[in-house]
Amino acid sequence: MALVEVTGHGRETGFTVVETLHTAYSASVRNYLLKLVEKNQGSNTDISQANFFLARLWSEAVHQLLNQTGFKADDIDLVGSHGQTIYHQPNPEELLNYPISSTLQIGDPAVIAQLTGITTVGDFRVADVARGGEGAPLVPYFDLICFSKLKKNCLVLNIGGIANFTFIPADGDPANIIAFDTGPGNMLTDQLMQRLYEKPMDRNGKIASLGQFSKKLFDYLIKYDPFPGIKPPKSTGREHYGEEFVIALLKKAVRWRITEPEIIHTVSRYTPFTIRKAYENYVGHEIKELYVGGGGAYNRFFMKTLQDYFKDTPVKNVAEAGISQDYKEAICFAILANECIHGSPAGMPKVTGAGSPAVLGKICQVV
Amino acid sequence: MALVEVTGHGRETGFTVVETLHTAYSASVRNYLLKLVEKNQGSNTDISQANFFLARLWSEAVHQLLNQTGFKADDIDLVGSHGQTIYHQPNPEELLNYPISSTLQIGDPAVIAQLTGITTVGDFRVADVARGGEGAPLVPYFDLICFSKLKKNCLVLNIGGIANFTFIPADGDPANIIAFDTGPGNMLTDQLMQRLYEKPMDRNGKIASLGQFSKKLFDYLIKYDPFPGIKPPKSTGREHYGEEFVIALLKKAVRWRITEPEIIHTVSRYTPFTIRKAYENYVGHEIKELYVGGGGAYNRFFMKTLQDYFKDTPVKNVAEAGISQDYKEAICFAILANECIHGSPAGMPKVTGAGSPAVLGKICQVV
Repeated sequence: MALVEVTGHGRETGFTVVETLHTAYSASVRNYLLKLVEKNQGSNTDISQANFFLARLWSEAVHQLLNQTGFKADDIDLVGSHGQTIYHQPNPEELLNYPISSTLQIGDPAVIAQLTGITTVGDFRVADVARGGEGAPLVPYFDLICFSKLKKNCLVLNIGGIANFTFIPADGDPANIIAFDTGPGNMLTDQLMQRLYEKPMDRNGKIASLGQFSKKLFDYLIKYDPFPGIKPPKSTGREHYGEEFVIALLKKAVRWRITEPEIIHTVSRYTPFTIRKAYENYVGHEIKELYVGGGGAYNRFFMKTLQDYFKDTPVKNVAEAGISQDYKEAICFAILANECIHGSPAGMPKVTGAGSPAVLGKICQVV
Repeated sequence: MALVEVTGHGRETGFTVVETLHTAYSASVRNYLLKLVEKNQGSNTDISQANFFLARLWSEAVHQLLNQTGFKADDIDLVGSHGQTIYHQPNPEELLNYPISSTLQIGDPAVIAQLTGITTVGDFRVADVARGGEGAPLVPYFDLICFSKLKKNCLVLNIGGIANFTFIPADGDPANIIAFDTGPGNMLTDQLMQRLYEKPMDRNGKIASLGQFSKKLFDYLIKYDPFPGIKPPKSTGREHYGEEFVIALLKKAVRWRITEPEIIHTVSRYTPFTIRKAYENYVGHEIKELYVGGGGAYNRFFMKTLQDYFKDTPVKNVAEAGISQDYKEAICFAILANECIHGSPAGMPKVTGAGSPAVLGKICQVV
């Protein structure tokens, strides 16, 4: 969570990060959500409850941030909340003879508004999907605001569970922006660390750095995973790089007697590899700099391998452009909430494939 | 659906119904929704898809209404959409040691906004539930606007699937309003007509009028159904008066060799009976008039039995007070949408039990 002071809107947006807060889910909440999301196991009851439950947890975090800063709810104009995605399928599926694209985020913004006393904007992806877009990524709008100031071609990469990047053209023209999910970020490595080492992640990429490269496993990944070969616009998530993907991978690794550090090394290399391939295949412009944000920017193996793949291009942390590495997405959704209350369309058809730009977000007021 | 010209807001609201439209769900849509709602059978996928799917169907109906009237989307300021409730449990249930009340309506208002090109307000119940209320009924706010003009104590009854009424005090003071769900409306009779006669309803109450009264079955209903004995505020729905309730009832009826017309008669009498009991037990004010709206007002057996139960009080159709019987709820949600964009709280703590009045609805804008 980031408390951000925002001025103006659109390309004239200015912002200062006042304070940030990170609170982790408890293990029980995390397990509950993973089950809900990955196993598609929500019932009406589960989803309705979780929609209110998450909003309540997040509202508690808002109160914590207010206490931490001494601000009162009345001092804050807006909460912007992305929500927890529990389903995302922009490619039409058939329902009663209709082709239906859909996306579903829970953690109700109207509940957050009531529990915090602050007008809340949420559900940013729905409008774009309704206009035929992928509903993702949304961060490129923010990247454009921040990085077009550099006035040079650059690539802004975010490595979260999934990795995505935005190509920012030197001229800052939104029509020339290219952005899409490139494939796995930390998601595969994290899951494998949990299964093989009972650790949540490969901190600093240490195990990946110790392991050897398995060409066999790498080739298998390239062959097995169709996502990098799909033409943008495209987006992906846990429904593709989740449990099923990892179990299939582990079966092969065991059969081929690949050691645990080799698995972590090889799969960790797959993340920068797919990022490079995405750049080569779908960007088509030289870049002067590559900026990396998200949790994956802490993974030294990722960073080193990225520098190897992008050999003549300086690979930098987004912090070097003044953007918080950890809170970039939080700041982004504060900016998107601000766009929403200005009635300003933050949808980017060039990026998501939507038919036209949409005003993103639903406004939930308080008395 | 009702196209309504609205002036002002709050107690100064004025409105004229310009046009109405009713479109029925196809049998396949109806069956799909019944399964989703009643059997609590939605998965993440189902709920996400249905959320977009219903919004699309309703948007098509909006276009149909526009064509019918010659208006363009630009001529219309707002769509107000209640949504399809697929879960409603204002009484806290435990989730990971938190007491969680929740409600879930689908048919995403942001999708309606994109597909119609008209700013849409939806999800009216969430904020009230978040403030500790039942999230229902919401119509009393509208009843107050319409019926306080009469300046006499009256009861405004709506017989939909569920029946609910609003007691409007002569002084029109919101603090003296009493409103709650009284129990079944058409829901039990409709389900029994489907099971026993393969018809969607007992048109005009014809079969109920032909049948005899079964005291045994009536006493069973009174004993089996705890809802009428619960103190308001309270609300109910298909999760209580749905398939399970009806199957248990039919088992008894079969065992006791009660004929089909007797069943329809007796169960149809239970609706006005629970309305009368609700009045006697929880209103505590004399009334000068009883106004009835909703589909149930077409059921002559309901109306006749109501007049028997409220013997000295004139039982009238809401149409006699200038309110459309069929489109009352549609008009109500146009008025509630109007309140939302005025930032005016339409939540009624006296009615729903919420801690304080909330601004109801989420605003979904268009470019």
